[in-house]
Amino acid sequence: MNGISTDKTIADMARKAKAASRFLASTTTDTRHAVLHAISELLLAKKQEIQAANNRDLLAAEKKGLSSAMIDRLTLTDEVIAGMAQGIGEIIVLPDPVGEVSSMRRRPNGMIVGRMRIPLGVIAMIYESRPNVTIDAAVLCLKTGNAVILRGGSEAINSNIALASVLQQALAVCGANPDAVQVVSTTSREAIDVLLKQDEFVDLIIPRGGEGLIRFVAEHSRIPVLKHYKGVCHIYVDKDADLDQATPIIINSKVQRPGVCNALEGLLIHQAVAENYLPKIEQELVANGVRLLGCERCVALGKQIVPARDSDWGTEFLDLQLCVKIVDSVQEAQDYIDRYGSRHTEAIISENYTTANQFVANVDASAVLVNVSTRFNDGGQLGLGTEIGISTTKLHAYGPMGLEELTTRKFVVYGNGQVRP
Amino acid sequence: MNGISTDKTIADMARKAKAASRFLASTTTDTRHAVLHAISELLLAKKQEIQAANNRDLLAAEKKGLSSAMIDRLTLTDEVIAGMAQGIGEIIVLPDPVGEVSSMRRRPNGMIVGRMRIPLGVIAMIYESRPNVTIDAAVLCLKTGNAVILRGGSEAINSNIALASVLQQALAVCGANPDAVQVVSTTSREAIDVLLKQDEFVDLIIPRGGEGLIRFVAEHSRIPVLKHYKGVCHIYVDKDADLDQATPIIINSKVQRPGVCNALEGLLIHQAVAENYLPKIEQELVANGVRLLGCERCVALGKQIVPARDSDWGTEFLDLQLCVKIVDSVQEAQDYIDRYGSRHTEAIISENYTTANQFVANVDASAVLVNVSTRFNDGGQLGLGTEIGISTTKLHAYGPMGLEELTTRKFVVYGNGQVRP
Repeated sequence: MNGISTDKTIADMARKAKAASRFLASTTTDTRHAVLHAISELLLAKKQEIQAANNRDLLAAEKKGLSSAMIDRLTLTDEVIAGMAQGIGEIIVLPDPVGEVSSMRRRPNGMIVGRMRIPLGVIAMIYESRPNVTIDAAVLCLKTGNAVILRGGSEAINSNIALASVLQQALAVCGANPDAVQVVSTTSREAIDVLLKQDEFVDLIIPRGGEGLIRFVAEHSRIPVLKHYKGVCHIYVDKDADLDQATPIIINSKVQRPGVCNALEGLLIHQAVAENYLPKIEQELVANGVRLLGCERCVALGKQIVPARDSDWGTEFLDLQLCVKIVDSVQEAQDYIDRYGSRHTEAIISENYTTANQFVANVDASAVLVNVSTRFNDGGQLGLGTEIGISTTKLHAYGPMGLEELTTRKFVVYGNGQVRP
Repeated sequence: MNGISTDKTIADMARKAKAASRFLASTTTDTRHAVLHAISELLLAKKQEIQAANNRDLLAAEKKGLSSAMIDRLTLTDEVIAGMAQGIGEIIVLPDPVGEVSSMRRRPNGMIVGRMRIPLGVIAMIYESRPNVTIDAAVLCLKTGNAVILRGGSEAINSNIALASVLQQALAVCGANPDAVQVVSTTSREAIDVLLKQDEFVDLIIPRGGEGLIRFVAEHSRIPVLKHYKGVCHIYVDKDADLDQATPIIINSKVQRPGVCNALEGLLIHQAVAENYLPKIEQELVANGVRLLGCERCVALGKQIVPARDSDWGTEFLDLQLCVKIVDSVQEAQDYIDRYGSRHTEAIISENYTTANQFVANVDASAVLVNVSTRFNDGGQLGLGTEIGISTTKLHAYGPMGLEELTTRKFVVYGNGQVRP
């Protein structure tokens, strides 16, 4: 596909998406839920076609020599498809944020002012291998009345085209504009570049994937981007920590799922408890297969802690490795987090009222936790019902983004002839 | 100033601003209000120095042959300075949004989750001639615990440097970090370019000024931008309008202050009332000095309506000119607004319940109004207490931005040993 046709195709998709977003904004929740039900049913009814397309992707992946972990994420087994269909049911039962009017008040001149929650308009998702993101993202966007343009990874292109066909059929069956969900069928990076310039039609870009993809999107986009680059999460064990509570929290944060963004990457221990506690937690972590990289004092106190290199501090290992450091105060812990953290998830273990509250107030991260595992920084766990991603930039959303974060508020004013003096 | 030193200077300012923002985030409202009081007092105490600097700008402006309107906006008279000082008092009495915890709930596992309002961090304002923006923006940012980098227009450079000195003295007097407010003292556009790339340190860019400046900022920024390009605002006079109410609303919207973004630029009239109403409103508008550009049917019905050229529809005149068009339905009015509006302010005049509600629900603009003047789309008028600008993009803020829009929310979690199953 040459440059001109990519430009035209992507711009055309964006224009159509905008028109579809106008249609969606005027639909009721019932209409949008009917579409979601139809997607769920068609996913199961068309399972064989979807899996046939998925097999073509899997064959290509094997030829390319992709890792078994990547192939695993790419595979649409019966269970994965059933899970996708069931997940839609869980989204349908969540309250619809669109249409809510809040802060409605009468002004001194008698006019009534409120703020009405409305869809954002057109959302573009740019993501890598997992084809179930295609369904998840489409469902969350449609639930909230947004049109969506999906650009998945080249490894999943056949699967994504098959899923797009299900999505558009579901829209058509319900009499809805099928342009509400469109999948970019070219896998060139040029297509992303053109998409990032459609600021006339696209309201938000959400990239999901590796840091390289996300940096590329952030640097080239003229459209607002909600993103997080990485999760370098810490736990600070205070001098006043309940150490019996600390251990299961640290183990859960590091070991339960080390490859995700809310897993623990750095452990800070107050010097007053280090001599007693460091050997204990070292033993537990090592027993769980964790390799420890520490500061000089840690190396001296521990048995199997290797000296951390400068480049280890602040690294997102996404693996069974952990940096450990002894600090002299909560202030030093906060300064360390300020320097090496990624504004994602930061936790303190402390029974001290003042220290815990100070940490919560002063640490700059999308979620600041007291006495719980870092693994809780997740839309479902925090009570949003679902999430479409996590933002570590502060505009519009900071932390997990649920349905409400896919909407905005406009001012509505009801008067009876008021003019401005 | 050469490229390297601009790069270094701006990056250094951004880094210092980030450090100051950490300091500010840990201050109490009382501390920040003490700074605002000191600014107010110093503005009056240093009036002569400020006016001496302002005079240098005024002399340069006269030499350059700037318009009298521009020179007027640049002039810091005794009254303007007194007004700035008084305005600070009005900001001090507004509630401080920082620290509010909302949506606090207990999760099924017993942990308590809430969302705490925090400052954004570092805000950069890029604006044109009016030097009072320097004080306004600094005060709103400091009130909400944000550090700010101010880059005003070259015409006001001496005034801005004098005002910066007042701001930094006020910070110093109160023992606060003076880097919390910094003014870019070079007037090169290159400085803006470098500033727009400081995404590591700056959280938000707010440009205020002409469409050219705002487009430049939006296209070159790697940092989120809150902006509006222009205000092309419409009033639709429905077939069920109370026409006695319509006239003062239209006159107020168009005539009260034609040069601002919420002034009326397009009038749509339902054909069922046009024959009766158009000649009446024409007479009123013409009596108020408004030149009318109309569709063919308007030209036929009116006496002094000249045919609009294609390029007139959707133009932001900022002057006593108005486009007038007869439409056959509320749907046609909505379609017209969709095509020619700027998502700023759109109003309907109607006594019909269904029509008014349909217009409010379906029109995409930062403020949708029923039976009131478009001039009410303003932070103060809508009850925000103040405004730092108006956003016509939907992310983070849509419409006037008050103090709350200068903050974001982080998740806070209080537990007692919870881990994720």
